[in-house]
Amino acid sequence: MSETISLAHGGGGRLARRLIEDVILKELRAGDSDGAASPELILLSDGAVLQSFTGIPVMTTDGFVVTPQVFPGGDIGTLCVTGTVNDLVASGARPRVLSVGLILEDGLPIDDLRRFLKSIRATCEKAHVRVACGDTKVVEHGAADKIFITTAGLGELAVEPAPGPWRLEGRTGVAVILSGTIGDHGVALLGCREGLHFETAVESDCAPLADLILPVLEKFGSAVLCMRDPTRGGLSAVLGEIAEQAGIGIDIVQANVPVKPAVRGVCDLLGLDVFALANEGKMVLFVEESVASAVVSLLQKHPLGRDAAIIGRTVERSGRPVHLVTSLGVRRPLEVPLGETLPRIC
Amino acid sequence: MSETISLAHGGGGRLARRLIEDVILKELRAGDSDGAASPELILLSDGAVLQSFTGIPVMTTDGFVVTPQVFPGGDIGTLCVTGTVNDLVASGARPRVLSVGLILEDGLPIDDLRRFLKSIRATCEKAHVRVACGDTKVVEHGAADKIFITTAGLGELAVEPAPGPWRLEGRTGVAVILSGTIGDHGVALLGCREGLHFETAVESDCAPLADLILPVLEKFGSAVLCMRDPTRGGLSAVLGEIAEQAGIGIDIVQANVPVKPAVRGVCDLLGLDVFALANEGKMVLFVEESVASAVVSLLQKHPLGRDAAIIGRTVERSGRPVHLVTSLGVRRPLEVPLGETLPRIC
Repeated sequence: MSETISLAHGGGGRLARRLIEDVILKELRAGDSDGAASPELILLSDGAVLQSFTGIPVMTTDGFVVTPQVFPGGDIGTLCVTGTVNDLVASGARPRVLSVGLILEDGLPIDDLRRFLKSIRATCEKAHVRVACGDTKVVEHGAADKIFITTAGLGELAVEPAPGPWRLEGRTGVAVILSGTIGDHGVALLGCREGLHFETAVESDCAPLADLILPVLEKFGSAVLCMRDPTRGGLSAVLGEIAEQAGIGIDIVQANVPVKPAVRGVCDLLGLDVFALANEGKMVLFVEESVASAVVSLLQKHPLGRDAAIIGRTVERSGRPVHLVTSLGVRRPLEVPLGETLPRIC
Repeated sequence: MSETISLAHGGGGRLARRLIEDVILKELRAGDSDGAASPELILLSDGAVLQSFTGIPVMTTDGFVVTPQVFPGGDIGTLCVTGTVNDLVASGARPRVLSVGLILEDGLPIDDLRRFLKSIRATCEKAHVRVACGDTKVVEHGAADKIFITTAGLGELAVEPAPGPWRLEGRTGVAVILSGTIGDHGVALLGCREGLHFETAVESDCAPLADLILPVLEKFGSAVLCMRDPTRGGLSAVLGEIAEQAGIGIDIVQANVPVKPAVRGVCDLLGLDVFALANEGKMVLFVEESVASAVVSLLQKHPLGRDAAIIGRTVERSGRPVHLVTSLGVRRPLEVPLGETLPRIC
């Protein structure tokens, strides 16, 4: 096997086959000698027949173009599984299988590809999902940036009715819970970007949230009205979208929003809005007031939910959809950012 | 809305939202004022809950990096739906929904994007599928080539047991049927590549095959043992793979393989192997000998199967896995191509 990806690996011929069998399948199935962990992959068919699937399917997709591909706390392989798993979880689904579509640039070192595949496998194990099907394309040097990954996820609805912003329509007094600190992923990426090197101890929060959130759904069921993971656009975008879709207002108590001191420091230094920075291991939950404290307690028992807190409430809309209430009692609008704080954050 | 895609469209903010609502959803849902055709899309949630899904799910994924993005007979939008639908059909599934992941290059004219989205919608209608979820990323100018699309497909298994190469193990005398002419897509792409312009009347065969193939599954059920669509690597790669996976031999009667005269002309002129050229609207079917003629008759009733023919038989392996039998009775090996006849053919 040559040391770098070449265009010939993207054909339908023997070299493509060798890449798939000797590198991709080998890494994705490491230690899985009997195929128990990925029964569909060994068949190398056009489609994966998911014999053991039950329940109502929930489907999602996400593309990953993050740069650099390796960052403190993860890499594009970690991220592509995390992002798709967390979208399924946010939809109220138990993640089951993923598809992985690779677009590789001619010249990509095959060892880099191996690294990302190892991360995909390790993160799948953490999230109790498996890769059921995949695809590999190669483009000329200069026609892509090393590697892009598009994953789709399939899960089973874990609670009915499904959580969603429509369940917040006309509802005031619903508690808004955040599962942990914000801004970690954005600051970690910023810290390792070319031309922007500075020392932070901040790692990406990149983590699949199935083990954190599914127990909440199991215990509190339909009292969980809506969830979303605040990735691109950060907490601002997610809250703004949900408020718009539900036709409600949201008041957030600024002091209750957990932010790591190092993240706050970088934001202060560079004039960044921490509410607009991306997160890759956090969930926003809208839950019935009556169970809010119990949900926070349950979240806090898991390492990924240690800093969980009630950060606000839904209110009747007055003026802008989302407001921050400062420690001085001032109420100011929290706007959805226009564009991009950082391009290619995920 | 600006005239070209910019990095800001890839953030999680208001510009991204406008692109999704005013361009992407608008095109994908044209004429669908009540959301009946795409109930999941209007919710703009993290995942699509597929309430009406029944049966055993079949999942597939495919990436599309074709260049040029517009070619005789289709464009990248036509192709991304076609490829995924045909993979599902080849797996014995009735296609139901697709996910669409877009990776856009900064500077892509938004009118180009609209065109591709219109093609996605039109091809979905032909194939009786809908887009259930999507994602959009933007990368800097020069970090991608205009647009890459990765689709995943979800279908319901339409026949049990599922067709697949494992059902050919130890089976000789199984008929090999090809649904039409080969090489059309490859020659159409070649004809419009930069630096390779020549006049052909050949258009890509790019077409979803659900309406052609599902009636065969309905009528002949488990007598359809294996199917695959001969895309990248052409008929050679598909036959070679199936023969390897099933541990059988395949003999193909060269004179029975339908090839358009114009395609044969280009191949002769340029020294191309028509068996290695890509197809995007053809299916290879392995069926029980007893039903082979009836399957061909049924295929021929559909415009996409007009040229369907029995092209060969499975045999005991002797020497190489696949052989071509020429009109002079000479039996020569049909090898799987090593690399790529044409890069970025799909």
